[in-house]
Amino acid sequence: MNRPPAEFGRIPPDPLRTFGTQCLERAGMLADHAEQLARLLVDSDLRGVRSHGTRCLPGYCGSISSRSVNPRPEFRVLKETDVAIHIDGDGSLGYAPMMMATDAAIAKARVKGVGVGAVCNIGHYGSAGHYVRRAMDEGCTAFSVQGAFPQYYRSNQDKRAAHYGNPPICFGLPSETEPPLVLDAATCILADYQRGEEFEALEEMIPAALFKSMGYTAIGTLLGGAFVGMAAQLSREVETRWKGSRNGGLIWVMDIGLFAPAEEFRQGVDEMVRLAREELIPLRGYDEATLPGAVEQRFEEEYSRDGIKLATEHIRSLVELGQELDVPVPWSQ
Amino acid sequence: MNRPPAEFGRIPPDPLRTFGTQCLERAGMLADHAEQLARLLVDSDLRGVRSHGTRCLPGYCGSISSRSVNPRPEFRVLKETDVAIHIDGDGSLGYAPMMMATDAAIAKARVKGVGVGAVCNIGHYGSAGHYVRRAMDEGCTAFSVQGAFPQYYRSNQDKRAAHYGNPPICFGLPSETEPPLVLDAATCILADYQRGEEFEALEEMIPAALFKSMGYTAIGTLLGGAFVGMAAQLSREVETRWKGSRNGGLIWVMDIGLFAPAEEFRQGVDEMVRLAREELIPLRGYDEATLPGAVEQRFEEEYSRDGIKLATEHIRSLVELGQELDVPVPWSQ
Repeated sequence: MNRPPAEFGRIPPDPLRTFGTQCLERAGMLADHAEQLARLLVDSDLRGVRSHGTRCLPGYCGSISSRSVNPRPEFRVLKETDVAIHIDGDGSLGYAPMMMATDAAIAKARVKGVGVGAVCNIGHYGSAGHYVRRAMDEGCTAFSVQGAFPQYYRSNQDKRAAHYGNPPICFGLPSETEPPLVLDAATCILADYQRGEEFEALEEMIPAALFKSMGYTAIGTLLGGAFVGMAAQLSREVETRWKGSRNGGLIWVMDIGLFAPAEEFRQGVDEMVRLAREELIPLRGYDEATLPGAVEQRFEEEYSRDGIKLATEHIRSLVELGQELDVPVPWSQ
Repeated sequence: MNRPPAEFGRIPPDPLRTFGTQCLERAGMLADHAEQLARLLVDSDLRGVRSHGTRCLPGYCGSISSRSVNPRPEFRVLKETDVAIHIDGDGSLGYAPMMMATDAAIAKARVKGVGVGAVCNIGHYGSAGHYVRRAMDEGCTAFSVQGAFPQYYRSNQDKRAAHYGNPPICFGLPSETEPPLVLDAATCILADYQRGEEFEALEEMIPAALFKSMGYTAIGTLLGGAFVGMAAQLSREVETRWKGSRNGGLIWVMDIGLFAPAEEFRQGVDEMVRLAREELIPLRGYDEATLPGAVEQRFEEEYSRDGIKLATEHIRSLVELGQELDVPVPWSQ
């Protein structure tokens, strides 16, 4: 999914943002949420994370216009202390309330060293990296997961344990001169397309890896779910009204200077990233050993400069979306 | 490593604890640290986590008597706030100072909802689950990693990226009636014994899984290393004196009632654990689908009642250790 597409066009980020914002607004989303969401989706595209970029626009516009999620939510702070904040997302998509919780958690971490943001009653919040990267920009390290009520997968029947769920998880550590370390991933070690006999054989070969994978899935789902209140009656009521809203989210933020000087920490990250790149024997089929975050940074540089590589198929779906919502396509085709 | 041994004896936990305590004291460790460490190692054995149980006694006794680690450390609180504590372990093994940081972080989490404990200048802290389980006993959820300076692996040369390090990592979520969810693991998805052609072929088959694995390794190493001060000059000086001491550790604790009622959270964990067990198709070669923590609980019940299954080889090494240190073996052979 996130390999560069074979057939593509190059679209610059600015018009893509404008287009995304207009589509989301036209679908019924509040203007500032639309602008924020379009920006975050384009950020994903810029990093080559196609799965969580503007490819999601048609689906999100659909959820909004069909009122599967609340297009005009009123966020409510359910609890706030000097180190924690808990926000009710009122059935909306997850991006706006999660970013609100993230900003609050960062502010707390800047003062107290530590901050936790939690959000309940939201839909998809996209890539967990959106929130973690925001914290990294502010000199923090962060961890985020999205979970669900009561479990993301209400029925696991006929599901192979090896493919037990796949919620987003992200750890991010800011660097100084090397690419940052950002594990912006999903919890399952097998991708959704990795199914069938060949992959079932792995179950006997690497069961410990698959048990770990199952564990990360359960942990992400619960920390971003039951822990933030998604097992409550209130959540069930919200979900009855807004069917696309059964998630929660968590972010945990720490100032990188909490225990050691910030520059020392950054140099440590640099050193680790550098040593891995220079000394490890790359995975078979790769020319280099990179830690997560490096490839995304490289895409970001290239795509910001030369335009984002979007698959032809992806561009076509955006053009169709524009026609449907009567939004002009602001890039040359 | 952690499968039940084919040839074994059953040793009850009490005499094993007594024996371990006496050996560690005889090697030169402070009495209360010796008692604590022996208890924690036997706890690992009780959970079937052989790799981190009394099998480590000979090695630890060796590090202590050879003064590779400081047998009589003076811990120093470097920083303490209402949500965070930072402890200098003074070149000792990691268990005692890490448990001290854990207890402090738990106390903070009980008051503030959140607590972070950090330790620098220590040796091995064993299984990350020791500290996380302590927090779980006190109604908290926790995450812990052990890291190092400047990187755990000073030289990665000739190391395959797929086997990039393996520091301990643990997430733990307490349940009510079902087994708790405890991912007490190492970061690498491949085990150390999984080397050679067959496993190298995996690099082309599941590169994303291996990149995630590399990411978790780097994150654990850095959060438990540079983040807790292991890139500082002081740490290098401590390590010059105590060569077995180049690690740090981190634990992050949250009260499970921070955002939602504690019982609701516990029921959410129960539900997730139950659904996985009842509905998923088990991994090939297994009769049941269990989440991490379930098997350990089962071993704990059996081994507490019937004695711990220790491999014959393992028992022999303990007997030899007793002879070496002039400590009588207090179980019947």
